[in-house]
Amino acid sequence: MSGSSTYADWIAVDWGTSNLRAWAMRGSDAIAEATSDKGMGLLEKSEFESALITLIDPWLGTARTPVFACGMVGARQGWVEAPYTAVPSKPLANRFARPETTDSRIDVHVIPGLKQLENPDVMRGEETQIAGFLAANPNFDGVLCLPGTHTKWAHISAGEVISFRTFMTGELFGLIAKKSVLRHSIANGWNDAAFITAVTDTLSRPETMAAKLFAIRADQLLNATDVGAAKARLSGLLIGAELAGAKPYWLGQNIVLIGDANLSALYATALETQAALSQIADATQSTLAGLNAARILTKEPTS
Amino acid sequence: MSGSSTYADWIAVDWGTSNLRAWAMRGSDAIAEATSDKGMGLLEKSEFESALITLIDPWLGTARTPVFACGMVGARQGWVEAPYTAVPSKPLANRFARPETTDSRIDVHVIPGLKQLENPDVMRGEETQIAGFLAANPNFDGVLCLPGTHTKWAHISAGEVISFRTFMTGELFGLIAKKSVLRHSIANGWNDAAFITAVTDTLSRPETMAAKLFAIRADQLLNATDVGAAKARLSGLLIGAELAGAKPYWLGQNIVLIGDANLSALYATALETQAALSQIADATQSTLAGLNAARILTKEPTS
Repeated sequence: MSGSSTYADWIAVDWGTSNLRAWAMRGSDAIAEATSDKGMGLLEKSEFESALITLIDPWLGTARTPVFACGMVGARQGWVEAPYTAVPSKPLANRFARPETTDSRIDVHVIPGLKQLENPDVMRGEETQIAGFLAANPNFDGVLCLPGTHTKWAHISAGEVISFRTFMTGELFGLIAKKSVLRHSIANGWNDAAFITAVTDTLSRPETMAAKLFAIRADQLLNATDVGAAKARLSGLLIGAELAGAKPYWLGQNIVLIGDANLSALYATALETQAALSQIADATQSTLAGLNAARILTKEPTS
Repeated sequence: MSGSSTYADWIAVDWGTSNLRAWAMRGSDAIAEATSDKGMGLLEKSEFESALITLIDPWLGTARTPVFACGMVGARQGWVEAPYTAVPSKPLANRFARPETTDSRIDVHVIPGLKQLENPDVMRGEETQIAGFLAANPNFDGVLCLPGTHTKWAHISAGEVISFRTFMTGELFGLIAKKSVLRHSIANGWNDAAFITAVTDTLSRPETMAAKLFAIRADQLLNATDVGAAKARLSGLLIGAELAGAKPYWLGQNIVLIGDANLSALYATALETQAALSQIADATQSTLAGLNAARILTKEPTS
């Protein structure tokens, strides 16, 4: 990226455990983007500022530039703790954490996550995507599903997150595919029919999951099943079990998926097996719209 | 161990993926034991013989010594493939794999595992423990549960394994406790009440497991729950879900647990919550008795 033409009005930052993404923004438009592997998990508190400046320096002019950041950057182990807001709540409250910086060119706002006290649960980052979706769809009433490492299901009504529930499905997929005995049976490739069969299997009998997982390995040893089908089957077993558990969220609801496009498409396919229709919203656009909504909030008089 | 007084009549070997255990035997009694970390997973085919000889050399005299080995040593990637026997079957068939050795002091027999074609499943090593248990309890009719990395449930009748089912529970426990986001919330310690609550929780609602797993983390973040209770809860959630899936095996049955004493006690406690009573048999004794049963088989005329 070159310097002079990309001064930003403000800077949007999505700072997760393993990645840092930043965008130079003018109004609601991203005019430049930069990423680094300096995720929260790698950094000491004192290292966040320089990790950010290294990435966004070309976008900084002489005026103090507002920065809005969401994600694990606001965790206790992050740059500055942005204490969770309890649901029911709007996804964004005008109550951002403000780390002190030595570089006076930036003015950093860190967005708090949401917490749920009964049925303990937490999110950090997804609240911003929800806010972004709601900024574009202010009258939405229904369920947002945010598939990922820790998939979130959130019940939305009257602009508020009423309740939510996290499933560790994505993390389980990664661990089982890469670290368990199934790593010998799983490789790239895909098989839609195997995925759909597996989804309906654990959706109706979620209690058999730990046995069905091992059966992928046994089937491969005995019948030399295709490694791509094995991957689809693992994914289907885990997503099917999740849908069984998340049924109170999606059954009979208006469902929108916000996440990685491929993964969202899998969830949509899985939901279709239950005649549940869903729409897919772009994850990055939702994040940017949410960070922009946060920026606009800070300009409004606080109540 | 010292050499001269420990010549073995025969040698018993339990050779798993990550460990190698050997016993110098006289009749059915172990007179010496040795272990090494030369598990099957670490060895090339050409390295098995020397790994074994290094361990058992002090027990070898001038006569050719029979060696009976069970476990992953008989897998395709092991020393010599001992093809699975299909159930229904007695746990041991007189059909051992015989690797060639350069050292003429040993005569090695590798015990085949069992396979199930309908509802694909496999075991290697547990068939020997089952044979050992049945040698001491020839009229047993009921269910054997062998808790471990890959817990096996086996339906036994008239001296045969009729069917079996593997649950990846132990492996999931290890991965989730050590490699997932829950590793921050889990440490040594224990809480019986948390274990029992978690067991009954997933036994009745197994579909919520991936959410209940994340709730361990969220609860710890929000309520600073005890890390020992978190460990008990993780164990209980996984074992409870397994018992839900294995119900066709244990419900109304005569149940014997063969495995690590602590883990078997957890399964017994979990089963008790459902008024299912079980007994615990010693795992090592079962292995040695099974290897001894294999040795006796080779002396009988083949039919």
